[in-house]
Amino acid sequence: MSDIDSIVATAEASRERYLEEFLAFLRIPSISTLSEHRGDVAECAEWVATQMKNAGMKRVEIMPTGGHPLVYGECLEAAGKPTVLIYGHYDVQPADPLDEWDSAPFEPSIKGDDIVARGASDMKGQVFAILKAVEALSQAGPLPINIKFFIEGEEEVGSPNLKPFMMAHTDLLACDFALNCDTGIESPTQPSLTVTLRGLAYYDLIIRGPKKDLHSGMYGGAVHNPAQVLCELIAGMHDAEGRVTLPGFYDSVRDLTPEERAEIAAYPQDEQEWMQQAGVSKTWGENGYSILERIGARPTLEVNGLVGGFTGEGSKTVLPAKAMAKISTRLVPDQKSDEVTKQLEAYLNAHCPDTCSWELVQHAGAPFGLNTRDSAPMRAAIAALRAVYNAEPVYKRMGGTVPVVAYCKEILGVDTVMMGFALPDDGIHGPNEKQHLPNTWKGIETYIRFLAGL
Amino acid sequence: MSDIDSIVATAEASRERYLEEFLAFLRIPSISTLSEHRGDVAECAEWVATQMKNAGMKRVEIMPTGGHPLVYGECLEAAGKPTVLIYGHYDVQPADPLDEWDSAPFEPSIKGDDIVARGASDMKGQVFAILKAVEALSQAGPLPINIKFFIEGEEEVGSPNLKPFMMAHTDLLACDFALNCDTGIESPTQPSLTVTLRGLAYYDLIIRGPKKDLHSGMYGGAVHNPAQVLCELIAGMHDAEGRVTLPGFYDSVRDLTPEERAEIAAYPQDEQEWMQQAGVSKTWGENGYSILERIGARPTLEVNGLVGGFTGEGSKTVLPAKAMAKISTRLVPDQKSDEVTKQLEAYLNAHCPDTCSWELVQHAGAPFGLNTRDSAPMRAAIAALRAVYNAEPVYKRMGGTVPVVAYCKEILGVDTVMMGFALPDDGIHGPNEKQHLPNTWKGIETYIRFLAGL
Repeated sequence: MSDIDSIVATAEASRERYLEEFLAFLRIPSISTLSEHRGDVAECAEWVATQMKNAGMKRVEIMPTGGHPLVYGECLEAAGKPTVLIYGHYDVQPADPLDEWDSAPFEPSIKGDDIVARGASDMKGQVFAILKAVEALSQAGPLPINIKFFIEGEEEVGSPNLKPFMMAHTDLLACDFALNCDTGIESPTQPSLTVTLRGLAYYDLIIRGPKKDLHSGMYGGAVHNPAQVLCELIAGMHDAEGRVTLPGFYDSVRDLTPEERAEIAAYPQDEQEWMQQAGVSKTWGENGYSILERIGARPTLEVNGLVGGFTGEGSKTVLPAKAMAKISTRLVPDQKSDEVTKQLEAYLNAHCPDTCSWELVQHAGAPFGLNTRDSAPMRAAIAALRAVYNAEPVYKRMGGTVPVVAYCKEILGVDTVMMGFALPDDGIHGPNEKQHLPNTWKGIETYIRFLAGL
Repeated sequence: MSDIDSIVATAEASRERYLEEFLAFLRIPSISTLSEHRGDVAECAEWVATQMKNAGMKRVEIMPTGGHPLVYGECLEAAGKPTVLIYGHYDVQPADPLDEWDSAPFEPSIKGDDIVARGASDMKGQVFAILKAVEALSQAGPLPINIKFFIEGEEEVGSPNLKPFMMAHTDLLACDFALNCDTGIESPTQPSLTVTLRGLAYYDLIIRGPKKDLHSGMYGGAVHNPAQVLCELIAGMHDAEGRVTLPGFYDSVRDLTPEERAEIAAYPQDEQEWMQQAGVSKTWGENGYSILERIGARPTLEVNGLVGGFTGEGSKTVLPAKAMAKISTRLVPDQKSDEVTKQLEAYLNAHCPDTCSWELVQHAGAPFGLNTRDSAPMRAAIAALRAVYNAEPVYKRMGGTVPVVAYCKEILGVDTVMMGFALPDDGIHGPNEKQHLPNTWKGIETYIRFLAGL
């Protein structure tokens, strides 16, 4: 038995104690969005800090932010070894609607192989697994890698203080790569790793016409209606093939190689199941690409919101002075948000009629994320999953954006390994949220093998 | 001196008393929208009722409605003569912003030729003028025409009880034609009469896609976005020439004759001034038509409102489950609302993609209004204006809809003469609302000559 196998065996033998501790973690109602739970959130931070000490961290600090505290822990005694920055969050969503829970959300219960509780899968299960993995490693001897934990308490309220915190603590958080545990896995038997994330560029597009709202009877037909103009501009942004028409939009998009397309095609994703999750009876999108390609590898332009004029019940005959759309684009390698901004501006200059004016306000976005599969951390992650699951991992192209991954790249200059153990059907944010306990146990083993393999 | 000239002369000699009474009317803060003024509204109804009695009405009733009362008065002793139903309202808009008034809104003050007070022009001035005209006629002998007044107290809150009241009192309100005093005149020296009103068909158009709001990162690009679909459908409703594309939309539109176009072209309307009022630097509309033709004689399709997805501050990456537009068409002779509904439905059936579903909800509308100029009431109105102003009236095609005119047609089966004396710059609904006193006096004389001329 190798050193690692014996550490894994010790961890397996400790599951009874682990379970008790996991239950204790789940019993703390650390709901970040409800001010009456402020004390519980603070108690949960203390719990995490204690666990970090138990896991061998030499320095542990509960660090204040503008909102809920962040728990930092480090052990930097593995000379010559890389430093990993481990991200997670200890806060949870509110539990309502309470009457849809079969058991109390903060009185965790075991049902078959599942542990049911608010936060079980999002993401106390993963925070717990990585803490136990580090604990198991530290109990067996000096840690094989330098570790920095940063576990925040505000993820479920949109992490309003995370980016400022990271910008203010670049030295503290300096690392070689990051591990983000706030993610999932394809199935209990099929390991997966996220290899790409789409970036985001987000805008308000405001079209202005007359100085103030007009009576549509008195002026309609002779004053250009900004809501109509907005619709026409938006309509012009896609062609009949579902492609974005902004000139140059696809210029810097990296084409998929035949190998990549084959890999995506082989991804274990059932189209019917996907449509059911989406709540649609038909898919849509850019001609010539599959669903997974459209979401994972192709850029998009979405209308996230529309507002203008009268929107209440009944009728009001207003010709609105302005109308606004929230528009965002999802960026893929090698698109840059600045390019899209320029393309949108050029499109508006070319197409907005001179009867109206336009304004484009850009909100915070994020660059795309791209993990090369042959970095040392990714190779270690792949090897760990392979060893634990006895199966080849599949590689997931996520359509969304994970802000903290973008911050790690942008502020700390590092790539992130995204490896977690939530299942698609864990019901996160909903009633009867659960974690599949075999995933918790495999998660601990995977994290042990990953950290030891670097 | 004819009988009428002598009645007019008597009225002129009574201006001092008239002014005192007008001031008393204006001092009553009959603000229908503010519950604390309910007593003032009731007092104002009493004042109007007393004036009706003074004007020779044999039956006067303050009639309750679901909201503020309506004052009814009648004198039906002119055997063999037509019956006119006179519409007006005694309620006024709120006066705020109070600090923009140069004098207290309910302490009327005379400034040069103007009388400044809330409601002076909208429309106590016209209610007062018609009451004094009838009073002057009744003091000179038997009234030359049968008169029914119905003066409501809820116009400024949208007349919620007017249509039900009219439907419940068709016998009481039966008449040969209506006179609506709630309108204006082109200038102090240029008389005008409204000859057409556009009708209205008003809809909610709802586009539905996925069952619930989706994450635009996880699903964007592979699920058709209902807000985008809505924009595309709306964009397709106009062509590049500003024409509405709904098949058949113009089929029943009556073409303007060369004579009508010449008359519209001669209408004293300065384009620059119009643009300033509209708050635009450029006009827009259906190719081949002037501003006044576009507003007065051509149908339109307007987006009155747009809403869908996330519309707050900042960014939220939602792919909305639905999006909605408020859409209305202005109808001209001989368009019917039902035809437009069918055209919209056919358009949506043809163009809404099968990735989404559509729903069209129709709200209350109104038919177009069209006054033939050679009816007896219109001839009498034209003659009266001509005599008082010593000028030929011009004929206004209003782009808007006046619900009570539509109700008179629909419920009572009668046409309406629209003749009032508000000026375009009277500042109705705004601070320092005024009426030009020469208009009040000319209004009294015009109404005398009109009623006597029938």
